[in-house]
Amino acid sequence: MSGSSPLSPILAVGSVALDTIKNPFGEVSRVVGGSATYFSVAAAFFTDVRLVAVVGEDFADRGAELFEGRRIDLAGLQTVPGETFRWKGEYGFDLNTRETIYTKLNVFEQFEPTIPDAYRTSPVVFLGNIHPRLQLEVLDQVEKPHLVAADTMNYWIEGAPEELREVLKRVDILIINDAEARELSGEANLVKAACVIRAMGPSTVVVKKGEHGVLMTRPCEGEFFAAPAMPLEQVFDPTGAGDTFAGGFVGSLAACGEMSDAAMARAIIYGSTIASFAVEEFSLDRLLRLTQEDIKERFGLFRRLTYFDEG
Amino acid sequence: MSGSSPLSPILAVGSVALDTIKNPFGEVSRVVGGSATYFSVAAAFFTDVRLVAVVGEDFADRGAELFEGRRIDLAGLQTVPGETFRWKGEYGFDLNTRETIYTKLNVFEQFEPTIPDAYRTSPVVFLGNIHPRLQLEVLDQVEKPHLVAADTMNYWIEGAPEELREVLKRVDILIINDAEARELSGEANLVKAACVIRAMGPSTVVVKKGEHGVLMTRPCEGEFFAAPAMPLEQVFDPTGAGDTFAGGFVGSLAACGEMSDAAMARAIIYGSTIASFAVEEFSLDRLLRLTQEDIKERFGLFRRLTYFDEG
Repeated sequence: MSGSSPLSPILAVGSVALDTIKNPFGEVSRVVGGSATYFSVAAAFFTDVRLVAVVGEDFADRGAELFEGRRIDLAGLQTVPGETFRWKGEYGFDLNTRETIYTKLNVFEQFEPTIPDAYRTSPVVFLGNIHPRLQLEVLDQVEKPHLVAADTMNYWIEGAPEELREVLKRVDILIINDAEARELSGEANLVKAACVIRAMGPSTVVVKKGEHGVLMTRPCEGEFFAAPAMPLEQVFDPTGAGDTFAGGFVGSLAACGEMSDAAMARAIIYGSTIASFAVEEFSLDRLLRLTQEDIKERFGLFRRLTYFDEG
Repeated sequence: MSGSSPLSPILAVGSVALDTIKNPFGEVSRVVGGSATYFSVAAAFFTDVRLVAVVGEDFADRGAELFEGRRIDLAGLQTVPGETFRWKGEYGFDLNTRETIYTKLNVFEQFEPTIPDAYRTSPVVFLGNIHPRLQLEVLDQVEKPHLVAADTMNYWIEGAPEELREVLKRVDILIINDAEARELSGEANLVKAACVIRAMGPSTVVVKKGEHGVLMTRPCEGEFFAAPAMPLEQVFDPTGAGDTFAGGFVGSLAACGEMSDAAMARAIIYGSTIASFAVEEFSLDRLLRLTQEDIKERFGLFRRLTYFDEG
């Protein structure tokens, strides 16, 4: 997987955060999190990533620990006075419910993404789950990217619908979860929901269904690619699983350098593969120890999980 | 798909019913339903089926309309004085909720399955979702079948747990839905649930997850086969989808004549294929018009839906 693909490197804009997470297995304080963090670490297993985000002085040398030695360019990671974005969440006994205890935007409140000049011609742009106004500001600073992928959430669907609509017109691939797809489209049926969302702009809609896997539209109207999630005996910490999926998905596509049906399907499996590791431990702990061999092996397990022939 | 397989024919025991169904699209009264009906019609696309069930005099010549011209032997379909088992259900606006308005067992209340002598050596037995006591009575009347597959439901898990445990000791493949798997095992995680259920007897557990597809254990501990459901723009009537899946699954296995990993995976897809047709119309309407060509075409769509390679 070389960096010479026409779809590489990826410009990734989103949040870098310090998370406090409580779940049935324990609690950790101020571990590194954030949509752009998970995305970048996952994508960097496949291709080069240019990270644009903001942290406070309390982030200290955590960036070095996390990102150095990886294919992540940090020229766009600003450190400003104040505290880093903080989030605290608590999971229920079966990890299917999550309560946000607090969200402290801190330095993120004043974040105005400034894309370094050298990044403006990035062929792929990933817009993490941030305010649609900021997503638009990023798009205004880049020059005709080949591919724009974006994430969003119910908070923006409800709170900034008009700006979100503007973003969607300029997005090629929208990656959202099933509840968000239903809310954004006003359709309970996911096939219809995807069709409505495509009419808003994105030619491809990737619907994340958590433990039920992923459903992706294909260019041919009414056709889909579907993948189950890897059945896991224990999900330890689902935080960041969706962003990790997005990183593996977009990273794999970028490395491949084309958006054929086959490349898109494979990218969904790479995204699912990386996400299945992310949930095994707190924060990015498992991802930071992950090897290309691990990825290759679990990709093979996905194939055994889903493969059938005509007999 | 010939009938000369060592796993053919299938002895199927369960309910034949007259259903009244109300859903957002309309209402039908006293249409044919029942677990053994859906199972048999689906399985008969693949192999020979011997149906054992009971109907009342009101069933009249409905059996002829439904079953004749199909690979279904009706020597075990008893007609007795009284009314056929009746069920009335009403679906919510998105078909995800279903309320049972009434269940009138009628002639089914006195049903004692009597297996015709010629059926006692059937190599495959399917025990539809009936009282575990009746399932045991069936097993006591057959001679060492090669394969016993069974369905059950929360009603029996709660109401007849000891008899159900006796059944499970004698079952090779248990086909249940995700909520039932969790209830039967006491485990919220489906991987753990399947493991617990396998320890009760069945070497294979097939977990039906409705719109989220199917998860099947494999002989190797901790390995699974997973299939998504076909994404459908409209599910018209989900009644009987699970029994239809079971019919396609067991029917395909029986026709294939072996229980290799490949045959089991293919059977899951055939089950899913047939079930995806069943929900398109009320009752068995779509299944009765179904052709082998239809099945083959949609099987191909399933392959396009899930196929990926290593690039």
